[in-house]
Parts: sequence; C-alpha cells; structure tokens
Amino acid sequence: MAGHDALPLIVLTEQFAKLPGIGMKTAARLAYHVMSMDAAEVEEFVQALRDAKQTVHYCQCCENLTDQPFCAICEDAARDKSVICVVETPKDISAFERTGEYKGTYHVLHGLISPLHGVMPDDLKIRSLLQRVQAGGISEVIMATNPTVEGDATAAYVSQLLKPLGVTVSRLAFGLPVGGMLEYADEVTLYKALENRNII
Amino acid sequence: MAGHDALPLIVLTEQFAKLPGIGMKTAARLAYHVMSMDAAEVEEFVQALRDAKQTVHYCQCCENLTDQPFCAICEDAARDKSVICVVETPKDISAFERTGEYKGTYHVLHGLISPLHGVMPDDLKIRSLLQRVQAGGISEVIMATNPTVEGDATAAYVSQLLKPLGVTVSRLAFGLPVGGMLEYADEVTLYKALENRNII
Repeated sequence: MAGHDALPLIVLTEQFAKLPGIGMKTAARLAYHVMSMDAAEVEEFVQALRDAKQTVHYCQCCENLTDQPFCAICEDAARDKSVICVVETPKDISAFERTGEYKGTYHVLHGLISPLHGVMPDDLKIRSLLQRVQAGGISEVIMATNPTVEGDATAAYVSQLLKPLGVTVSRLAFGLPVGGMLEYADEVTLYKALENRNII
Repeated sequence: MAGHDALPLIVLTEQFAKLPGIGMKTAARLAYHVMSMDAAEVEEFVQALRDAKQTVHYCQCCENLTDQPFCAICEDAARDKSVICVVETPKDISAFERTGEYKGTYHVLHGLISPLHGVMPDDLKIRSLLQRVQAGGISEVIMATNPTVEGDATAAYVSQLLKPLGVTVSRLAFGLPVGGMLEYADEVTLYKALENRNII
C-alpha cells in the first residue's frame, strides 16, 4: 500500500496488520483479496466476526469460550468433574483435547501473572477457580500453565491459594519431548528429565 | 478449533481460513485474537471491510482500484499520459511505484489469459485499453505482465491488437536480477540475459 492507493484500502490494510503475525505485506495482500471477493462473501465474513464477538463469552463454570451459559466440556456428563486442569488460554484446551486422554474439566486463567506487563493476580480468573474448589467435589487441580518463568510463577501462586482448601495440586511433568534427541535438548530440560526420572 | 469449540468461533475460523495464505492453525489463532479485541475494535475492522468493498471500484480510465471516479495516478497532472504500462493486478502498480522511476500511467488487466483456468480475453480489461489507445494521444504501451507462460501469452495477444492502432508496444526486459549470482540463475533467465546483452 502506498500514497497512490485508495484510502479505504489503506485503512483495511492497517486493520489486517493489527492482527497477530500479519505484517504490512501480508495485510496488503489480504486487503486486495477482499476486493476480489463477492459482496456476499464479505458480508458473510463481517457476520462471522460480529457473531463471534457478540455471542461468544466465558463459560460460567470454567471461563472457556462458549456461546452457551456453560461450555461443551462442562456440560458433558461423561467428564470427570472432580479434576480441574488450569490453563492460560482457551487454545491450550484444544491442545489437551487433541491428546484424547484427558477426561476431566478445565479452568482458563486468561493470562499469566506478569508484573512487568502490568498483569496482576486480580486480572486473571483465579477467584472463580477458588470458588469452584470451595464449592466442593474437587479432588485434584492440575496446574498446566506453560513451563516459562511466568507460567511457573502463576502455577506457584495459584497452588498456594489452593492448598489450604485441602485439594491435591499437581504440575505437568517436565522432561524430554517424545521423539526428541538428547543432543538437541537444552540444559534445563535435560536437568528436569534427570531429576524427574522414573524407576523402570 | 475442534468439536468442543463454540460454533461462532468455528465459523469465524473457517472465514479466516478462506483468505489466501491463511491455514487452519493461523485462522484459529486469528479467531481467538478477535475474541480478545474490544467490541469497538471489531466494529472498526467490520467497517473497514465494508468500506473497502463498497466504496472501492475500478478507475474509469485505467481500471486501477480507487474510491474516486479516477485513480490518483490518472488524476495526477505530472504523469505522462502518453505512456501506458499494462499490468496484471493493482498490486503490480505498487511495485512499479516503489521504483520511483516510472512517470507514465497504468492499465490493469485484472488477470491473464488462461484457457486452462477458464479465463478468456473477454474476461480481462482489454477493451478499455484499446479504447484508451483509440482515443489518441498514446505514444507507447509497455507490456508489464509477469514473465510466465500466461504473462507472455497475454502480452503477445494484447500487443497484436494494439499494433494496428499505430502505437509502439514494448515488453519489460528479461535478464539477470541485479545483485543476483550467475551460478544460481536458471537456464532460461541466463539465455535471455545473453540474448538481450547490451554493447558497453
């Protein structure tokens, strides 16, 4: 996009460029593509944007994204309601669901504690997690935040609040990724793999 | 996106995935991002999409995209109206404008002749180009379609229609890219560079 381009095209390019991972060149390509779409196709896209924004909100139980009062996982009678897996974002739920192995429920914090970025514990969905545990019937809470400084700090902070409530709190295991090569593993991962070794 | 996701989110993901170069994973990331945008930001995006689609159309002279009757280049009194550079898409105009060297006008064909893909000469903006040349005042038409089979064929087809009108028709030079290495040049490019060699 340059000075000779039509203003509405420049505006649309800038809107696309605001999306994560979309640079100015890709944004310009997408804006040009919109020009080649039918008016009906553009309206479909517009409707999808509005629908998603207007009808999708947080599940009243686990804070996952849903267009119903409760999300599909919380509504599923087959899920084990006594186990809660605490994740940072709704995307992380998709990752666990892909394994097909986890049968419990989730709780989405919608962020990690990060004083540097101005994210304090009150900005996260921690209170609703404590309320779920206080309401009873929960046997274990699995802290499944990312293995980063902020993920570890948030897991430690939340588990300190949970322990007095008499619930088992666990953390995901860290070690070598399956299919990975020893020689390419970083030192911290290798140390964790050694520390958490299992008797065979 | 999976079965446990809210339907409006899945629909929005599918809409993003229809855009060129956006796969399902990126589309899901963008859809989740929309959920984290303010309602006002989403409306701004929606407005930009609609504005671009509704107000931008083809320039009455050169078929470039514009929200005015004529595009900024055709309206510019400083441009040499006697030279027309024929390109495939409005994007190609941006490429030429970045060189800052070309002072003539453009004509956008909006495609290339491609019987395999069902694109025939009548589907392109060739008629309006002929009308511009027939109206007089044009000294040269530069065929600047891509150096591909379809680009060459379209350039050949259009130039055959233009020549009887008594106008000079030229084609972009093909040769080694500036800064390129001889050993990495493909044979056809190298042959063209040899064939089109200049006396120094």
